[in-house]
Amino acid sequence: MKFTDQNNYTLLADFYEFTMGNGYFENGMQDEIVHFDMFFRAAPDDASYVILSGLEQLIEYLENLSFDDEDIAFLRSKGMFSEEFLDYLANFEFACDVRAIPEGTVVFPSEPLVTVRGPAIQAQLVETMVLLTINHQTLITTKANRICKAAGGRAVTEFGSRRAQGYSGANLGARAAYIGGCNGSANTLAEQLYGVPALGTMAHSWVQMFDEEIDAFRAYAKVYPDSCFLLIDTYDVLDQGLPNAIQVFKELRESGHEGRGIRIDSGDIAYLSKQCRKILDDAGFPDVTIMASNSLDEYVIEDLLKQGAQVDSFGVGERLITSKSHPVFGGVYKLVATEADGVIKPTIKISENVTKITTPGVKDIYRFYDKDQGKAIADVLTVKGEEIPDDGYEIFHPLFTWKRKTLKNYEVRSLLEDIYIGGKLVYESPSLEAIREKVQRELNSLWDEVKRLNTPQEYIVDLSPELWKMKDELLKKHNSN
Amino acid sequence: MKFTDQNNYTLLADFYEFTMGNGYFENGMQDEIVHFDMFFRAAPDDASYVILSGLEQLIEYLENLSFDDEDIAFLRSKGMFSEEFLDYLANFEFACDVRAIPEGTVVFPSEPLVTVRGPAIQAQLVETMVLLTINHQTLITTKANRICKAAGGRAVTEFGSRRAQGYSGANLGARAAYIGGCNGSANTLAEQLYGVPALGTMAHSWVQMFDEEIDAFRAYAKVYPDSCFLLIDTYDVLDQGLPNAIQVFKELRESGHEGRGIRIDSGDIAYLSKQCRKILDDAGFPDVTIMASNSLDEYVIEDLLKQGAQVDSFGVGERLITSKSHPVFGGVYKLVATEADGVIKPTIKISENVTKITTPGVKDIYRFYDKDQGKAIADVLTVKGEEIPDDGYEIFHPLFTWKRKTLKNYEVRSLLEDIYIGGKLVYESPSLEAIREKVQRELNSLWDEVKRLNTPQEYIVDLSPELWKMKDELLKKHNSN
Repeated sequence: MKFTDQNNYTLLADFYEFTMGNGYFENGMQDEIVHFDMFFRAAPDDASYVILSGLEQLIEYLENLSFDDEDIAFLRSKGMFSEEFLDYLANFEFACDVRAIPEGTVVFPSEPLVTVRGPAIQAQLVETMVLLTINHQTLITTKANRICKAAGGRAVTEFGSRRAQGYSGANLGARAAYIGGCNGSANTLAEQLYGVPALGTMAHSWVQMFDEEIDAFRAYAKVYPDSCFLLIDTYDVLDQGLPNAIQVFKELRESGHEGRGIRIDSGDIAYLSKQCRKILDDAGFPDVTIMASNSLDEYVIEDLLKQGAQVDSFGVGERLITSKSHPVFGGVYKLVATEADGVIKPTIKISENVTKITTPGVKDIYRFYDKDQGKAIADVLTVKGEEIPDDGYEIFHPLFTWKRKTLKNYEVRSLLEDIYIGGKLVYESPSLEAIREKVQRELNSLWDEVKRLNTPQEYIVDLSPELWKMKDELLKKHNSN
Repeated sequence: MKFTDQNNYTLLADFYEFTMGNGYFENGMQDEIVHFDMFFRAAPDDASYVILSGLEQLIEYLENLSFDDEDIAFLRSKGMFSEEFLDYLANFEFACDVRAIPEGTVVFPSEPLVTVRGPAIQAQLVETMVLLTINHQTLITTKANRICKAAGGRAVTEFGSRRAQGYSGANLGARAAYIGGCNGSANTLAEQLYGVPALGTMAHSWVQMFDEEIDAFRAYAKVYPDSCFLLIDTYDVLDQGLPNAIQVFKELRESGHEGRGIRIDSGDIAYLSKQCRKILDDAGFPDVTIMASNSLDEYVIEDLLKQGAQVDSFGVGERLITSKSHPVFGGVYKLVATEADGVIKPTIKISENVTKITTPGVKDIYRFYDKDQGKAIADVLTVKGEEIPDDGYEIFHPLFTWKRKTLKNYEVRSLLEDIYIGGKLVYESPSLEAIREKVQRELNSLWDEVKRLNTPQEYIVDLSPELWKMKDELLKKHNSN
């Protein structure tokens, strides 16, 4: 396929990673051990959670991390870097510990999704790609899942390659959408690269290629008698497209085949689909399905179905592949600690905006499940290594600390898994199918209130008393400066 | 660099291109000559125009267009395609004529930006990538230019890689932003790949790595005494960051160097920048510049400057690299004619939505300039080959045909250029710098009213009488069906 999915993206890094890296070097700090957390502050579309994806691509990037002669010559040409630093890069060996939450997991604001511990230069260098890989796919997986949720079990196919933001916008976007619940993508390459089923039938141009619409339908039925899906809105859905389709479905039936479906790509989907359904049923074609595909997203689909639209499947394009209503997932990558001789020193970033203040320290994340119902009830960030008692754990709101509640009768799961230890990959990415299945299990573990498309209930993510105290002390220290 | 910018994206095609291609083959239509137009219906952000880019990447794609054994085996595995069709693909030779408007040109709704003439299978196959390459970069170039316009001559640097939609979202997005007027990008790889200057200094993590902020500033100044740009909002801009920066700038001056600038990445940019400017001036640092970089776009920048913000340059991230306020450029690719024995037969796609009806036929585009002022006054789409008289040309609104006006004293430029003839590349892409310069010339040719960021004046794009008549006749024909 002459397609290099394994490009070396080492230089897809903000230039300041290099000016800082060189600066650490020149200040003798290159081997100082640092800890970074990647996390987000708010979910797109005012949702309460997102579905994590992109970890496999982050690993691909880390596996390819290296600088060749051309890269070094390029960096040298910038005239800012010492030869010692360039030499370090030329002999770069990834030595970090990376922990992450696996793909397909439901995650919430302020939770570390990826953590990196290692030499300052290295942990800093990977910032851009840690963010890019996770931000992009998590955005699209989450959007796809919202659209699938609105579709209420009807199939949703990703149709957006032509409006995607670049090649990987289309390819990895299709992967992410499949994880989120789509049944496939129009993008053929996404099947070849990732195994996302490629789906599609005909465009308006097929119909226009023939003198009469019915000739176009007949020609298609001749080639695909058992997968005959007809696009009926090139000229006029109810006056021409549907009658022509029914005529061809009748001819198919006479020759021992059954038409599969019609697609409507313009006009009022609610009205047209109801009309089409009735006419198809009356004509003896109750099994011919109706697909709709015109500027759809979770909001439009929810409204259409509320109005009784008779749609069996949806093709969703630009509003899915770009997450149009909210095209940015705002993951950030922040220094949370430095480490010397095994002693961890937490760090903080202050902001006038209280929600932008970072939570310092090296952490674990625990998810508490109600033992009886199996539903997730709260997540707690702890200082790494803290033990959670078997029963009875008091949680409290990190800003409004008088809001307290004691959890009982729970099971606890730790969310972060080891991906790299000392620069060595110790994790095997699950198959795409396994990740898709995980998404469904994860969603089943959430209360409906948290999953509401509009104004969902906020899920509890608290800090352990120890972590809260660490943050509070750092805040006080910097405020008294 | 172990980076393949020349990936083969042949299979980055909607699957229906293949089902249709196989269908043409099975119906003996594979060699029928067809004409497609790529155009858009409305500009993002309610603008009146966009700035075209992405053609170089479209050409790269077409140069790599081919199917290897692995591709053929993959397509065969779908179980839908005849061996004759697969054989055709295995021996694929691009034979189309492609015309396009060069990158950096200002273009308007309904104008063919790319036209493809060739065998039905081929012209159909390239649909997805014609759209993807042009849609993505045109979107970002246009957004970048809007942001640069709002910045009123102040430098704008593209900072968005970490929030881009995939690798090419970041890489080609940086290229597109540079064409649109940005002075560079934070993305290092974009300089290596495309020559977009890579820029950047320090992150908050640099400051956090030191016990005291002033130590971090001193360490940076030591390494980069002549390019010392300090990020001053890690803890508190006015109480700590700025006084520390001024102290370090004083120390730099004592050692014979001058500080370059400060960057503010949070808080109220209008208030903080005015305070910082005054304090810097009073401290004897009127040449230290102020950069701002917190969730900016053209609307925020316009407002900040209206309030007297003292900002010399802007770093713009997610809202530029995703065109957040409008993340989709809606280019479409429509069959406009078939051709047999040299006779062109125009085709049309009807829609209930009048603006979605296509304009049939093979076209030219002419831009009329006022001879005295050099400003563009109207574009006219004609049937290909129509002559424009030297002086005196009556134009009329294509929907409200009583709106008429006779143009006089004009110069005319034809916009479409030959890119491929019979599958052979006949066009040489200009350098990125040349495209950037073209953008500025193009913008200078527009009246200010057309360039307004909010509610701009609509630019005139009319049809020649011959083209209008062709469309009208097809509309009448299909409506009387």
